[in-house]
Amino acid sequence: MACNEAIRAAKLAKIRAAVQSYPDFPKPGVLFRDIFPIFQNPYVYEDLISVMEDHIKEQHLQVDVLVGLESRGFLFAPLLAYNLGKSFVPVRKKGKLPGEVVSIKYGLEYGEDTFEVQKHAIKPGQKVIIVDDLLATGGTMKAACELIENLKAEVLECITVIELLDLKGRERLNRPCTTILQF
Amino acid sequence: MACNEAIRAAKLAKIRAAVQSYPDFPKPGVLFRDIFPIFQNPYVYEDLISVMEDHIKEQHLQVDVLVGLESRGFLFAPLLAYNLGKSFVPVRKKGKLPGEVVSIKYGLEYGEDTFEVQKHAIKPGQKVIIVDDLLATGGTMKAACELIENLKAEVLECITVIELLDLKGRERLNRPCTTILQF
Repeated sequence: MACNEAIRAAKLAKIRAAVQSYPDFPKPGVLFRDIFPIFQNPYVYEDLISVMEDHIKEQHLQVDVLVGLESRGFLFAPLLAYNLGKSFVPVRKKGKLPGEVVSIKYGLEYGEDTFEVQKHAIKPGQKVIIVDDLLATGGTMKAACELIENLKAEVLECITVIELLDLKGRERLNRPCTTILQF
Repeated sequence: MACNEAIRAAKLAKIRAAVQSYPDFPKPGVLFRDIFPIFQNPYVYEDLISVMEDHIKEQHLQVDVLVGLESRGFLFAPLLAYNLGKSFVPVRKKGKLPGEVVSIKYGLEYGEDTFEVQKHAIKPGQKVIIVDDLLATGGTMKAACELIENLKAEVLECITVIELLDLKGRERLNRPCTTILQF
């Protein structure tokens, strides 16, 4: 176990080192954490996926569906679903999914936006993990949880690669949440 | 070889059967092909990835970078890069990528849009495959090719899951292109 922990810590250090920081993007005062360099090195990308996958295998092997939030959740949730042999279902912005959908509005810094999911894609009682790149204020992830819960499915946990601790998104989210890197 | 072909044909039949068709979405007269049911069945999703991956291994093992177009290209390109041990680089809409980017404008049915890629992410001479879900008129994929070529990289091929033959996107694209399902 101590050995596994040491391997995990080494992986996390490599993943953290790959994240690039850009001051004042997308606007003054914001320090943007760019995860895309992780994907340019297949070894680091593999480390990140293995850390996420091991966590799910250890804690939530009963999961039925991996939900990814458009669009950066699509970088992780389909691959995790593929590796775990589970279903992947997207949550998308309004108007992009055909057929019968359920919707939820959520507040942004300016104005609001709408998330949708296809009603047939998740069945009542299914166990769901929601995946995105970033936990910031938690508003987006909270809306996604409520959307899934409106389908009578159970959100086992939310997983993001990065958590911005200053913004206290975890408190607002008020649901189980695992983040890989904290800044 | 005949056996491999039969296995591939069986996989393609399962993938095709999973695609749902929605008349008049997102607007009257359009028949929308929905690929998301593929992801709800892990076996079908695995078949689709294996068909794409086998093709790349057979034809383009020298590839350096898998590029995915926002946002449905993100469903395939990262996983293919992961399985092949290659780099994944996103092409995103304007204003979403930090740091130095190169841009290209392209025409839509109404108005225009802009694609961007991080300049440091692809090096001159690298061999690139561009992945998206759909080849329709070919305008989006052509813009992505030109964007990558502006970085002095070589586009080996474009790969999409679906090709809408009526729209003759392949002619407009005028570059090597492999599509998994044709409608």
